[in-house]
Amino acid sequence: MIPSKGHCVLRGTNEKLQCKKCLTPETVNPNYRGLEYSLSGPVLQKAIEIEKEILEGHKKKFKNVILLNIGDAQSLGQPPLTFPRQVLSLVAYPDLLRDKTFPEDVKLRARDILENCPGGSAGSYSYLCGMDIIRKKIATYIEKRDNVASNWENIIIGQGVADMAKLFMSLLKSNKYGLAAGILNPVPECPFYSSIIAELGLKRIDYFIDEDNQWNININELQRAIDEAKSRCNPRAIIVINPGNPTCHILTKSNMEEIVKFAFKENLIIIADEVYQNDVLKDDCDFISFKRILNDMGKPYSDIELVSLMSVSKGVFAESGIKSGYAEFVNLDPEIPPMFVNLASASYNPSALAQSTLYSLVNPPKPNEPSYELFKHEKNVIIGGLKMSASIAEESIHSLEGMSCNPLEGGTFFYPRLMLPQVAIERADRMKLSPDEFYAMELLQETGICVAPGSAFKQKPGTYHIRMTLPSDPEMAHEIMERFKEFHFQFMKSFS
Amino acid sequence: MIPSKGHCVLRGTNEKLQCKKCLTPETVNPNYRGLEYSLSGPVLQKAIEIEKEILEGHKKKFKNVILLNIGDAQSLGQPPLTFPRQVLSLVAYPDLLRDKTFPEDVKLRARDILENCPGGSAGSYSYLCGMDIIRKKIATYIEKRDNVASNWENIIIGQGVADMAKLFMSLLKSNKYGLAAGILNPVPECPFYSSIIAELGLKRIDYFIDEDNQWNININELQRAIDEAKSRCNPRAIIVINPGNPTCHILTKSNMEEIVKFAFKENLIIIADEVYQNDVLKDDCDFISFKRILNDMGKPYSDIELVSLMSVSKGVFAESGIKSGYAEFVNLDPEIPPMFVNLASASYNPSALAQSTLYSLVNPPKPNEPSYELFKHEKNVIIGGLKMSASIAEESIHSLEGMSCNPLEGGTFFYPRLMLPQVAIERADRMKLSPDEFYAMELLQETGICVAPGSAFKQKPGTYHIRMTLPSDPEMAHEIMERFKEFHFQFMKSFS
Repeated sequence: MIPSKGHCVLRGTNEKLQCKKCLTPETVNPNYRGLEYSLSGPVLQKAIEIEKEILEGHKKKFKNVILLNIGDAQSLGQPPLTFPRQVLSLVAYPDLLRDKTFPEDVKLRARDILENCPGGSAGSYSYLCGMDIIRKKIATYIEKRDNVASNWENIIIGQGVADMAKLFMSLLKSNKYGLAAGILNPVPECPFYSSIIAELGLKRIDYFIDEDNQWNININELQRAIDEAKSRCNPRAIIVINPGNPTCHILTKSNMEEIVKFAFKENLIIIADEVYQNDVLKDDCDFISFKRILNDMGKPYSDIELVSLMSVSKGVFAESGIKSGYAEFVNLDPEIPPMFVNLASASYNPSALAQSTLYSLVNPPKPNEPSYELFKHEKNVIIGGLKMSASIAEESIHSLEGMSCNPLEGGTFFYPRLMLPQVAIERADRMKLSPDEFYAMELLQETGICVAPGSAFKQKPGTYHIRMTLPSDPEMAHEIMERFKEFHFQFMKSFS
Repeated sequence: MIPSKGHCVLRGTNEKLQCKKCLTPETVNPNYRGLEYSLSGPVLQKAIEIEKEILEGHKKKFKNVILLNIGDAQSLGQPPLTFPRQVLSLVAYPDLLRDKTFPEDVKLRARDILENCPGGSAGSYSYLCGMDIIRKKIATYIEKRDNVASNWENIIIGQGVADMAKLFMSLLKSNKYGLAAGILNPVPECPFYSSIIAELGLKRIDYFIDEDNQWNININELQRAIDEAKSRCNPRAIIVINPGNPTCHILTKSNMEEIVKFAFKENLIIIADEVYQNDVLKDDCDFISFKRILNDMGKPYSDIELVSLMSVSKGVFAESGIKSGYAEFVNLDPEIPPMFVNLASASYNPSALAQSTLYSLVNPPKPNEPSYELFKHEKNVIIGGLKMSASIAEESIHSLEGMSCNPLEGGTFFYPRLMLPQVAIERADRMKLSPDEFYAMELLQETGICVAPGSAFKQKPGTYHIRMTLPSDPEMAHEIMERFKEFHFQFMKSFS
């Protein structure tokens, strides 16, 4: 027997009909109740407030707020590369194909895209999994990277890493033996993964990455995390971010092999977020993909299910606002990708415009093409700048008391640890902020530098961190680190 | 006690370790098992096959396949409007702002967008709900349309109608009294809605639109549908598509008022898909938004929760591949939109490029601006063409025996009914096709015209239909309808 629905309320003496809300915090999807995006905490809110005050003419100790809290290189002034943007403009407005100022290789790419759009226009619906011509070039790019075969039909183009991860993880939702599916999630985390896990009603199994061991992944810790989780969920996948966000660490080959063996033993799918694969910051480090590791390890490991994610959002391209990326499915049951496609059919169709940028990423100008020199130059400036910024950041942190940092190997963030004085911790507590939030808030108010507190990424109890974005302009990095050092020195002095 | 997980299988005498798939059709999210996108059925598969054969040089009775199965105007040769595409190319490649061949109003729009992108670049992350400047212009557009106030903060920009509907419907997921949330879904349906409902694990409550009454919505039928559903789910919302897809009907004011009263009585949220609002095909028809109806009806109806969806995909713009749209939330509990935003934070951020097209839609050239005349001309050609095509289609259908069609009032599809001879129905049955699939398959193979069979949209038992896209080029419409009439005549003759 279903209780009758109170669809309207009679109120007062004249029994006036009133409308009752159908959707309220009490009746909303319970997965979304209390869902908060940790990067939008009080420090960012304060930064937005200060920016507004500066616009209104209020005097501050600094000219402007510098948002180092998210990885948004172009917002910090990193220029987009000319080649992909020229391709994009031609795909958007093909009349420009007649314009003689655009190089022939740009026109060639734009024509490739347009000829593969139904009706020859980027305004028509694109293919569900992305354009075949681009998927094939992605396969070639992967083969060149790994020296391992890649089947383009296992590559699905989407709107970026978060979007593809969500679509894939939604497939994992199940209820075996009454237990929800569990996902091993690295801590410090990338906050969108825990949001997706919560939103889908999956269970998060946090594992701590080993800061004392250069941010490698400790297998005993993986085992602890999964063993503790087995009574409350059914572990199905492990997320590994390599190069790391926020850790800036590149996993060693032997560590990756251990992770693979663990995934095999526990029958886990590996979800490899490899979005920083082209952002190696140290000459003695190499990025190795999980696909290559699986392949090199041979049977039975080479059969492990793997989803590798990549996008145009980071590194040299840094086209976070374009929203394009791909997933390569390795070793999936052949019946799964078509399900993914049926699922995607309803609300999908990646934009042909966005895809054209992915095409530029995997099919850049070749040495004999007219855009090659400029492309190479722009790329070198950015990657060279990032490397210099990483050195500046590393040296600065090492020069400070009460701060430490593992080597910056790959990615676009760094994540130093703070050894905060007890007085500062108590002050934070009185202000109802976590200690690193308090530190970040003081940093913001004194210097205009907005960083993300480690509490937004979770951390080992009693440890404190901040995450900062590496600007690709080393002069900017230098200026920021000088302001930062001065602040840190004063902060430590006043709380010691 | 949890059964131990068989994470690997020992086989054969040398006990070689083998890898066992973690994700299989048996262990996948049960909502996705058997999920099929009905528009991708055998007729479309055949069309793709024939297209491939033609490319390979096989001789057919026709030059090419014409895909009238989906609403993809640009794939049928409808040209994109110059103004939004010029804006797009400038946003993508701002060096073109110095190019004197671009009109000043185009540059003005592009500068508006770029100045509101962090770092002045479309490659930076955009704001979660879309750019404020565009949301404000959308509010102005809505106010002009309805003569009712619109608060821009209630407008959220996303990737299109399906994307926004999915995000909103996911909020409705709940389990009151052990019952899943139910959504009233119009039949003939728009297939992505039923896919989304299934994917989210919601319950679909189909209601039949009344073909015998010019595709109006019959309140007795709504009542029947909801009453039958109440024992298996908790009805929370009703989807109404107006102007109709595939019906091409524009709801009358009095019918809309009845629907509103029904929604009030049953405490339902109205999800109004109003994507064809600018595609009115008859001079004596007017589009009225649900928001305006609610407002005009006054209390208590003006408090009903409403989500109105719109995108750049249809009509004169027809930018299906650009992926941009908006949702206006009306009367939602004020705590709900922030939840939507937290939810979106994880995997969202609409592309600034895509948004620029939405900006052109709601902020087109004004009479005193340089692009005005060309914009007006291009728009008139398309909407005039669509109206002529609608007349041609209507007249053609009326001239045929065994076919009927309600007036084509608004939208870009038409959905004639087929009265098929018994012999044809039996033949279809032997071929394991639905009767309208069989008809569509014959039409495809004889003429190259690919339409969507009514069975893809569900239909009243014993009725058969096809859905065809209206081309905006009346010459194309004429040629298609001539081939169609000839085919239909022969088909009916051979099966009578």
